[in-house]
Amino acid sequence: MKYCSACGATVSLKIPENDERLRHVCDACGTIHYQNPKIIAGALPVFNDQVLLCRRAIEPRHGLWTLPAGFMENGETTEQAAAREAHEEANARLQNLHLYTVISIPHVSQVYMLYRCELASTDFSPGVESLETRLFYEHEIPWQELAFASVRKTLECFFNDRKQGSFPVHNLAFLAKSPAE
Amino acid sequence: MKYCSACGATVSLKIPENDERLRHVCDACGTIHYQNPKIIAGALPVFNDQVLLCRRAIEPRHGLWTLPAGFMENGETTEQAAAREAHEEANARLQNLHLYTVISIPHVSQVYMLYRCELASTDFSPGVESLETRLFYEHEIPWQELAFASVRKTLECFFNDRKQGSFPVHNLAFLAKSPAE
Repeated sequence: MKYCSACGATVSLKIPENDERLRHVCDACGTIHYQNPKIIAGALPVFNDQVLLCRRAIEPRHGLWTLPAGFMENGETTEQAAAREAHEEANARLQNLHLYTVISIPHVSQVYMLYRCELASTDFSPGVESLETRLFYEHEIPWQELAFASVRKTLECFFNDRKQGSFPVHNLAFLAKSPAE
Repeated sequence: MKYCSACGATVSLKIPENDERLRHVCDACGTIHYQNPKIIAGALPVFNDQVLLCRRAIEPRHGLWTLPAGFMENGETTEQAAAREAHEEANARLQNLHLYTVISIPHVSQVYMLYRCELASTDFSPGVESLETRLFYEHEIPWQELAFASVRKTLECFFNDRKQGSFPVHNLAFLAKSPAE
């Protein structure tokens, strides 16, 4: 960020009064431009014993498999965002949504919120951001071709919890490894 | 938003290619400026049978009581954000944090994430954003002087769940009432 979105003047990095962090502050009008983490909302759609995955038609991770998920928009609930993403990426209709994994990824300032849910029907198909959409049994999951660690972890939680017959909310964090690790 | 934070030119509201929503798009460099919901992280700190509330020294809702909570910052986890807010607003040290309420408020594009936790000691005091910090038994809660509906709902869930002896994660949404309601 170089310019103030309110008045167009240049911004400087400084710590505002009563604050402890560097912020982009406008040199002219004084507006403080806060930057905050983004929510990625999505779904783990289940149909009988299978789960729905989408193969990505976009970067990053073009060609790899993911759960339908994307940036939450202003004016919607996390559940609505998850349902919208499943519709956009897989033309899928969801029902019976339950919050399932909440995963902080602080080094990219993202929080995943993924909903375990039922696929209302097998009437699904790739949206513009997907190359392919498909139901997978556990033994078919393409573990080596998953797009994101959050997707892998959510699938691991699900197959493990399914054996126990209980699906608590999992609140996790992925911390960045230092280069030495 | 009137000006591009990347190049300082004016922005226009338009629907970018492969999108369905109006965005602020730079007329000069083409940068799309997405706006997304913010997370408010906080805590429900419990000490024996009491809960910790803070009386707000800042607007909005100056003088009313709240659970310690505030905007999550880049580079932290939701749990770290909750602990930081409790420290900033009440000089309180938390332990044994469990995600408890996740509340979407779409008309202000906020998602509350509040953690049920234990207060490590009664060594707490008002931070700069608080006029007063105090432990309350259930019968002492100032229900008529609570700052936010999310705080009220979280306290209601807690006292109800405590009777049941079980504290599931509550995922809720507060939808704006139309003026006619």
